Amino acid sequence: MAVSTLSQNGIIADLAKKVRVAAYDLSRSDVQQRNQALILAAQALRSAETAILAANMQDLASAKVSDAFKDRMTLNHDRLENIAVGLEDIAKLPDPLGKELAAWTRPNGLKFKRVSVPLGVVGMIYESRPNVGADAVGICLKSGNGVILRGGSDCHHTALAIHKAMKQGIIAAGLNPDIIAMPPDSDRQHVTDMLHATGLIDVLIPRGGSSLIHFVQKEARIPVLAHAAGLCHTYVHQAADFDMARSIVANAKMRRTGICGATETLLIDQAIAKKLLPVLIKDLKALGCRFVGNQEACGLVDEIKLASSEDFATEWLDSVLSVAVVKDIEDALAHIARYGSGHTEAIITQDEQAARQFMDTVQSAVVMWNTSTQFCDGGEFGFGAEIGIATGRLHARGPVGIEQLTSYRYEVLGSGQVRPK
Amino acid sequence: MAVSTLSQNGIIADLAKKVRVAAYDLSRSDVQQRNQALILAAQALRSAETAILAANMQDLASAKVSDAFKDRMTLNHDRLENIAVGLEDIAKLPDPLGKELAAWTRPNGLKFKRVSVPLGVVGMIYESRPNVGADAVGICLKSGNGVILRGGSDCHHTALAIHKAMKQGIIAAGLNPDIIAMPPDSDRQHVTDMLHATGLIDVLIPRGGSSLIHFVQKEARIPVLAHAAGLCHTYVHQAADFDMARSIVANAKMRRTGICGATETLLIDQAIAKKLLPVLIKDLKALGCRFVGNQEACGLVDEIKLASSEDFATEWLDSVLSVAVVKDIEDALAHIARYGSGHTEAIITQDEQAARQFMDTVQSAVVMWNTSTQFCDGGEFGFGAEIGIATGRLHARGPVGIEQLTSYRYEVLGSGQVRPK
Repeated sequence: MAVSTLSQNGIIADLAKKVRVAAYDLSRSDVQQRNQALILAAQALRSAETAILAANMQDLASAKVSDAFKDRMTLNHDRLENIAVGLEDIAKLPDPLGKELAAWTRPNGLKFKRVSVPLGVVGMIYESRPNVGADAVGICLKSGNGVILRGGSDCHHTALAIHKAMKQGIIAAGLNPDIIAMPPDSDRQHVTDMLHATGLIDVLIPRGGSSLIHFVQKEARIPVLAHAAGLCHTYVHQAADFDMARSIVANAKMRRTGICGATETLLIDQAIAKKLLPVLIKDLKALGCRFVGNQEACGLVDEIKLASSEDFATEWLDSVLSVAVVKDIEDALAHIARYGSGHTEAIITQDEQAARQFMDTVQSAVVMWNTSTQFCDGGEFGFGAEIGIATGRLHARGPVGIEQLTSYRYEVLGSGQVRPK
Repeated sequence: MAVSTLSQNGIIADLAKKVRVAAYDLSRSDVQQRNQALILAAQALRSAETAILAANMQDLASAKVSDAFKDRMTLNHDRLENIAVGLEDIAKLPDPLGKELAAWTRPNGLKFKRVSVPLGVVGMIYESRPNVGADAVGICLKSGNGVILRGGSDCHHTALAIHKAMKQGIIAAGLNPDIIAMPPDSDRQHVTDMLHATGLIDVLIPRGGSSLIHFVQKEARIPVLAHAAGLCHTYVHQAADFDMARSIVANAKMRRTGICGATETLLIDQAIAKKLLPVLIKDLKALGCRFVGNQEACGLVDEIKLASSEDFATEWLDSVLSVAVVKDIEDALAHIARYGSGHTEAIITQDEQAARQFMDTVQSAVVMWNTSTQFCDGGEFGFGAEIGIATGRLHARGPVGIEQLTSYRYEVLGSGQVRPK
């Protein structure tokens, strides 16, 4: 292992080696010191406000992107304050390291313990929201991991200014600032090098549009925690409480349309569609939503345009809803199995048996009963903070918080036992 | 997700799609039925003994490999019986599925549960031990996973005969036999296709020599659970009990030299080396071991030849031991950090503080105190059976048993909650 790692060179390899050394020390640090670093990093961000906002202005001035994208890039006093408070909140979370996850004794007297340890070095590849990098540093720092940040080139100066301030906080807490690293420029080659950094980076966490995620998943030679899409379904079962269905569906689709936990497709049982669907559509239309749907849905509500099957495979991330009237729960489950992205699905019903069937059958990371898919979020799960949401099946699924950024080691305590035979 | 998956074609893709459908049903099956399939598969192996041993003779007749390799390939009545008993033992293990791993309620009344589920489809790539494929089927079946087996071409007929018998057992238990699959021939392209089967295979488990493992780790586009090497260290600290050290070192090195948990390097404190090292070497020499070592070691015992630094990076898997006399525990830890493969390391000492320092500092999957590294084995851990040992940090580390082949899903139970703001 050592040999192949040492043979790698270049900016990313050099950074990663430094980060690993620092992360090793961090993994053995006291939680008080890590918390102190988070608090001092928050303070350093506040102190550096002028420089950070100036860097952000510089990025905004040269960015050739859409207005929506510019809004995501933009920092101001309040947004920076939110980032700082986020770090302070992470400092308040319990220590995820050194926890005894399991312990048992074998008949030969050997004592086994499984103890939580950091993953090592996290590679964070993200687009342009400046908070993503800062949040990632906070979560990695708390969980004892080093992190290499590669943000979008449009926001490079902002990211550098934030990075510089956070390093000051880490130094002030007496920790090695090499636990966080950023390539010096926004050369795209750095992304490729991170994807191939076997033995140097332990896990990649990409955050951004689905084309970025697909690229990372396709090209990475190291494990990736991510969700390529959040094509979430809300299924209104025939035994749903109508008022509950109305309030949940409106929230699941329209609270925020751009997040991965937003519902993209409404499934509704034939038996209640005639009565309930027009009401649901009226509610959503009042909130600014447009609709595509299958023939049965179009037959019931004029506002629904006929959908192509591609529409049902589309994560709108917008005020658009795909609607399918389904025969029954089996039909709903088949639709989800065909089009779902493995993220989050919800059933609305008062029938416990139907809910149980739905939850046992859906293969997604998160299945919900009588609540809004928009709750799929680390904060709402009680994780305190999240670095992403994963839909793969290895390691972590669903929101990825500080606990999900840990691994474990086994401690085996003997009194001279040797293995027979 | 659905779209990219469906666009893949070829023998492996077609097999994998069938396996996934069957695995989905298996994931919802009753544990009694899965246990019954294991028991009936064991019976089917016994009934098919004549055909399996004939296929094995055919493979052996045409294999152009070393005698040691031929021995690993060879099946006989006893070895086949061991495979069958192994399946019956797996049937006796507790069900790893549907376990409530965690449960909590949020202030808004939402109830969260984390429940164990299968990983999905396992891709098993192995060399020529016929038991590896059968064990893998047993472990996957128990844990609700489908499995695609790709064994070494030298043993293809044996693997096919075993596979055919096990399918009969699965059918007899009323389960879909598509949960296990094997490509029809030993074309090497199948391996490449498995490595690239994103969305079709959830995890790859390679078993075999380090060149196979390195190849899989380098080329795979999907997660891999494996250990590339088992360069395990036993460190005899100055506060070791000498008798205990003698018995543990002899066992750790020589009980079986070809397994990944065998100790490859002995580290011993300067302070006791003059007195203890000659005794340890004498013990080992009597068992047939040869030695390379650093200058200090060579200076103390004639039998030790001067090692190159490459020797310390070598997993001997043979009756050869690398020996380094070290200044102190810091020196020992530095040696392990430089040459270790992240598998298993042991300290022999009566000094609890030194043991604690060793266990907190070593970054390997398994750290041991006063016992033999040869205990790094799923059976010895109490897992009942293992499909491999992992040294990565994502998902599972150490022995991979039925529990390690599970993932989880979140169930979120509401009563109409919608997300505010």
